[in-house]
Amino acid sequence: MTPEDAMALAIAESERVRGTTSPNPPVGCVILDEGGDPVGFGGTQPVGGSHAEVMALTAAGTKARGGTAVVTLEPCAHYGRTPPCAEALIEAGIKHVVHAVSDPNPRASGGADRLRQAGITVESGLLGEQVSKGPLRAWLHYARTGRPHVTWKYAASLDGRIAAQDGTSRWISSETSRKEVHDLRAKLDAIVVGTNTVRLDDPALTARDAGGMPLPRQPLPVVVGMSDLPVGAKLQRTALHLRTHDPDEVLDVLAERGVVDVLLEGGPTLAGAFWRAGRVDRVLAYIAPALLGNGPAAVLDAGVSTITDAVRLTVQDVTMSGPDLRISAVPQT
Amino acid sequence: MTPEDAMALAIAESERVRGTTSPNPPVGCVILDEGGDPVGFGGTQPVGGSHAEVMALTAAGTKARGGTAVVTLEPCAHYGRTPPCAEALIEAGIKHVVHAVSDPNPRASGGADRLRQAGITVESGLLGEQVSKGPLRAWLHYARTGRPHVTWKYAASLDGRIAAQDGTSRWISSETSRKEVHDLRAKLDAIVVGTNTVRLDDPALTARDAGGMPLPRQPLPVVVGMSDLPVGAKLQRTALHLRTHDPDEVLDVLAERGVVDVLLEGGPTLAGAFWRAGRVDRVLAYIAPALLGNGPAAVLDAGVSTITDAVRLTVQDVTMSGPDLRISAVPQT
Repeated sequence: MTPEDAMALAIAESERVRGTTSPNPPVGCVILDEGGDPVGFGGTQPVGGSHAEVMALTAAGTKARGGTAVVTLEPCAHYGRTPPCAEALIEAGIKHVVHAVSDPNPRASGGADRLRQAGITVESGLLGEQVSKGPLRAWLHYARTGRPHVTWKYAASLDGRIAAQDGTSRWISSETSRKEVHDLRAKLDAIVVGTNTVRLDDPALTARDAGGMPLPRQPLPVVVGMSDLPVGAKLQRTALHLRTHDPDEVLDVLAERGVVDVLLEGGPTLAGAFWRAGRVDRVLAYIAPALLGNGPAAVLDAGVSTITDAVRLTVQDVTMSGPDLRISAVPQT
Repeated sequence: MTPEDAMALAIAESERVRGTTSPNPPVGCVILDEGGDPVGFGGTQPVGGSHAEVMALTAAGTKARGGTAVVTLEPCAHYGRTPPCAEALIEAGIKHVVHAVSDPNPRASGGADRLRQAGITVESGLLGEQVSKGPLRAWLHYARTGRPHVTWKYAASLDGRIAAQDGTSRWISSETSRKEVHDLRAKLDAIVVGTNTVRLDDPALTARDAGGMPLPRQPLPVVVGMSDLPVGAKLQRTALHLRTHDPDEVLDVLAERGVVDVLLEGGPTLAGAFWRAGRVDRVLAYIAPALLGNGPAAVLDAGVSTITDAVRLTVQDVTMSGPDLRISAVPQT
């Protein structure tokens, strides 16, 4: 197996554990034996558990000796909650390490140096973009900025309305899209809405399967705003209520709680506040092929008054989600 | 060459002459000789000129004898401005005719019957959907309903705004998209805007090339609304001004003028009127990856007050136009 094929499998491992590892990165690792055959797979365990390299080495056992470790992130060299992965790789007799992206975290980096000191060849960058835009995107943002990564998700009609004139919005988007959002919720650490959304929609913000049953992993529901939640609201008992309108305050509190990956599902006012603060890192728009002709837009007051100040985005991906368009875009820097 | 390959070439001929034949259909024809080799190509000429079959037969000359005519529309059997194509095919010694779609026009149909009477085998429906959704879409609509086909085109930001808060809109969409729209204009018979758009944007509604020079074919500019056009407006001398707010009145006048294919480029109010009247046959949306957060939406009052009444569309095609999304959709029936 080529290192590239092995990295594709490591990426799949990385994606598999995404949403279960924060504040640690969801890393994937594949061990190839001396002949290049895959002998161990592993993904990062929840906090306090083993890292991906150790999981894969354990699976490989003695077959790892003389082999290659293919891993989505540079192995760590520091003693944190678990011993450093670099030491585990050296001890297991690994001869080559290939990683997709280097660790931007000064506390954890130095893994490649430590491996080289031990006589291991280290190659960096294989499928790096696929990893940094994929399973490690949120964590890399968090490691570089100290702030959780924010994905603003909304569902609107083709003419940009998130509800009809009378406020009804169930359902603008298709069942397929709504299922996708539930699967997405289970892969993130927190979902943020505003008090307005609680008042209007009384959401549960849980990740549920097609039958309506809760998925095993649930994100932290967060409500932002000064107003009290309505008595009996589904989120009253479950949500973290932050009495502020400042996105940075919200993100600081969440970062302290180990939240790395945030889904912003708030209404137009909260979305506007996050855009004005420059705190949206990705847009995920579900555009239903429908027209409403009236009703609220997805975002209100993004801080733009004239066309030359428009917030410009780069489209990364457009797919169909049932009859809807699913558009993933990132702000231009 | 297979009849299917020949039909693909006939479709290309059809597309090539689209926008130059109204009120006649933009038909394409390929003549295959007895051995199946292409020996003549033709497209419908402007009104009063030859139809596609005659053009292709002329190009083929005596090589047509014993051959096959592959044509996007059933050959006509009636004496109109030109003699019937069915007679020309019979006279040229054609043995087989393959057409994509049958003629819905009772005055022109009967072509297949006439050909069969003359001992020619006739096959219908080859790549029929490609033709009926493609180059003959507008004409088939016109032939079936007596009304011109209306494509509503707009450019908006991802959050559905067609201008910023201060009214500026140059440019929301990319240069690539704007060039596409100019090419599209040259393929249509008329462009319709409202008096508001004339007042706000003072458009010329001409089809121009990348250097700003007018393309050889220009659509009829039409302004709809009660107000006088501002003195000095570019459209004051060139446009047909229809003092009405009723889309059906507009379409009746245009149909009488031989307009088959209309591009509705009006603002939100006029677009709303066409939607309420059920007179939009296709949506062409250029969605720029940008957010404005304020400003007018693409359509105002489509006659929808609650979500279950949303105008539902079917997406036919999504492509990238430079950085923009180009979405083609049709109303669900």
